[in-house]
Amino acid sequence: MDLTEMGKRAAAAKYELQNLTTEEKNKALEHAADALTEHTREILAANARDLERGRESGMHQGMLDRLLLDQGRIVSMAQGLRQVAALPDPVGECLESFDRPNGLHIEKCRVPLGVIGIIYESRPNVTADAFALCFKAGNAVILKGGSDALASNMAIAHVLRQALEDCGITKDAVSLITDANRAVTGAFMRMKEYVDVLIPRGGAGLIRAVVENSTIPVIETGTGNCHIYVDRDADLDMAVPIIVNAKTQRIGVCNACESLVIHEAVREALLPRLQKALGEKHVEIRGDERVCDAICGAVPATPKDYGREYLDYIISMKTVDSLEEAIDHINRYSTHHSESIITDNSAAAEQFLNRVDAACVYVNASTRFTDGYEFGFGAEIGISTQKLHARGPMGLKELTSYKYRITGSGQVRPD
Amino acid sequence: MDLTEMGKRAAAAKYELQNLTTEEKNKALEHAADALTEHTREILAANARDLERGRESGMHQGMLDRLLLDQGRIVSMAQGLRQVAALPDPVGECLESFDRPNGLHIEKCRVPLGVIGIIYESRPNVTADAFALCFKAGNAVILKGGSDALASNMAIAHVLRQALEDCGITKDAVSLITDANRAVTGAFMRMKEYVDVLIPRGGAGLIRAVVENSTIPVIETGTGNCHIYVDRDADLDMAVPIIVNAKTQRIGVCNACESLVIHEAVREALLPRLQKALGEKHVEIRGDERVCDAICGAVPATPKDYGREYLDYIISMKTVDSLEEAIDHINRYSTHHSESIITDNSAAAEQFLNRVDAACVYVNASTRFTDGYEFGFGAEIGISTQKLHARGPMGLKELTSYKYRITGSGQVRPD
Repeated sequence: MDLTEMGKRAAAAKYELQNLTTEEKNKALEHAADALTEHTREILAANARDLERGRESGMHQGMLDRLLLDQGRIVSMAQGLRQVAALPDPVGECLESFDRPNGLHIEKCRVPLGVIGIIYESRPNVTADAFALCFKAGNAVILKGGSDALASNMAIAHVLRQALEDCGITKDAVSLITDANRAVTGAFMRMKEYVDVLIPRGGAGLIRAVVENSTIPVIETGTGNCHIYVDRDADLDMAVPIIVNAKTQRIGVCNACESLVIHEAVREALLPRLQKALGEKHVEIRGDERVCDAICGAVPATPKDYGREYLDYIISMKTVDSLEEAIDHINRYSTHHSESIITDNSAAAEQFLNRVDAACVYVNASTRFTDGYEFGFGAEIGISTQKLHARGPMGLKELTSYKYRITGSGQVRPD
Repeated sequence: MDLTEMGKRAAAAKYELQNLTTEEKNKALEHAADALTEHTREILAANARDLERGRESGMHQGMLDRLLLDQGRIVSMAQGLRQVAALPDPVGECLESFDRPNGLHIEKCRVPLGVIGIIYESRPNVTADAFALCFKAGNAVILKGGSDALASNMAIAHVLRQALEDCGITKDAVSLITDANRAVTGAFMRMKEYVDVLIPRGGAGLIRAVVENSTIPVIETGTGNCHIYVDRDADLDMAVPIIVNAKTQRIGVCNACESLVIHEAVREALLPRLQKALGEKHVEIRGDERVCDAICGAVPATPKDYGREYLDYIISMKTVDSLEEAIDHINRYSTHHSESIITDNSAAAEQFLNRVDAACVYVNASTRFTDGYEFGFGAEIGISTQKLHARGPMGLKELTSYKYRITGSGQVRPD
């Protein structure tokens, strides 16, 4: 389908979707979940074509793994849809209501955003996940997945659209851009007339390209150069397992710890223990001079290291002489995602919470908890690292806007 | 000052500003108010230079009026600062707090946005107003005013910066871009590293230019192609004064009514009364065939008319045969600002409130109430017509973001 036609249809669909009842939406999500498992064979056949193309073009194993679907992954996708159906419907919630002296009654009510555009990379499960969240929040969604996963995404989107139609709902609630031409993606980012919000999901390069080129309001997600600061008053027995967890529990995620900031007063006691614990996990340490003094085998860090999101078994380390210096260092290099302090000093904790500029600031916990499920939102469309609209994990509520409903009895504005 | 240097200083200032107490901020605002009136002479002298340049370059009277400052207007500016000082401080408010099963305690707290960029046109009072609102919400602000008002803006900004310094607060809380070169404005819109949000205040052309060129998240404000729909069940005695008020009480504002949608069943009864009432105010009527049949002297409307924000003594009129058709027409041509239905039918009112896609939807009232003061917010930085972050009148709360503060006792994410 032509991109403009797709935009028009999505923009028309939003008026239908905003008025669906919770029951209608949940029924459609359940039906779509059934349809996905019923069409396992077709989806796997399409996925096999993507994998074959990937192998032929020399795609490396990690990428192939991300692209791969199997019966288990399709069952998980279907379960994802059912989980979203089980979540409370955010639409229609009255956020505030007040009366004005002139008798006007004003209500501020949650409404869908309208049409959401999502640009994502290789994992085909995002096709189903993103649809489910956008749909439950009353939005139409236009998806642009990675070209590597095109056949898989087309198969999934086809099943979802058919399932909606079976339920008497417009299939334009979900559309997939199938033209892999870069110019088409560029045009999509400028479809301001039809698309209300654009959410890129992927690496720093994708996000930068969207921010640079979009005229549609963007929610930036994902890049996390997350720090843990070990304060002079830290309990080191607590610090070591938190650091190991935040760095190594899952390597390639945005809430993993990429950099450690260490108060000089605990440097000599902490570093040998970290060298051992991180060494067991084969983590390379890149540190400043004082770190390298305490850890033999540590690689000298360049200033570039402090700005890097490694997503790998590498961690940078920086020594500081004060809480102040730690906060300044973090605010300088942070991507404003998640930052943690390890301390038993409540005044230091309070300073850190107040002054570090990030979506999520932690005391005595792993940064890995910045996650929609871990926050109890039940689901997540991404982690916002900007300050406009939503910050941190974004669930269903973050996929809504609001409107003011004002009821009068003939009020006019006096001269 | 060099633009990059200005950005860096504002970005450094935000860390100081976010931690000011309410008392410190209010004291500074009061002091700045005093300083403005104390420096009336210097500000008026600068303004006289702007006016002279304006006259020399053939600026028309309306623009000169907007540019003009006098003692009264400076007193109003100072009062504006005092009013903002009297408003509640939004920063620090706890929006939500909850505990997770693993013992993590999560608080969602209001924080400043950081650095706000504001690009505006000729009125020099915006320099003081915008500073006051951004500052009270804990933000640094970088202002880019119209080049017509450069001397006035410089004089006002100088007084504000000095007043801050007198109070021991960084004067980088407010900066003014004085280079009128377009390339500088272009570079400002791409200073993503230092500026968190950009708010254009002005006409449709300015807003379009900012949306097209900015890499900083933008809040769109202002353009209002606002409709009033007179339903078949409307009380015409109520409809006529509402329409006259919404169209003519103030012509050049974004919440003025630009277009009327009339149900066929009331057309013949309503139009002669409107012809008389709007005729007294010298409003030109541009209507479809049925409107022109009922009003002699009405000008035939072109499709373009329905999309226009006249900001003038002109109104377009469209006849419809159903509520459905009215809603479709409005959703097609609306700028999503303010839309009103006149009806005694509560089902029709409910349909309209639910299905019309606008920041403010009204029943039986003038669209002119879409305003921060009328809503009781005490002040306003603009009216957002986008769905991301804020919609409708934006007061102090809309100049904030939030962060999650998470307190643990050693929690790590299980494998």
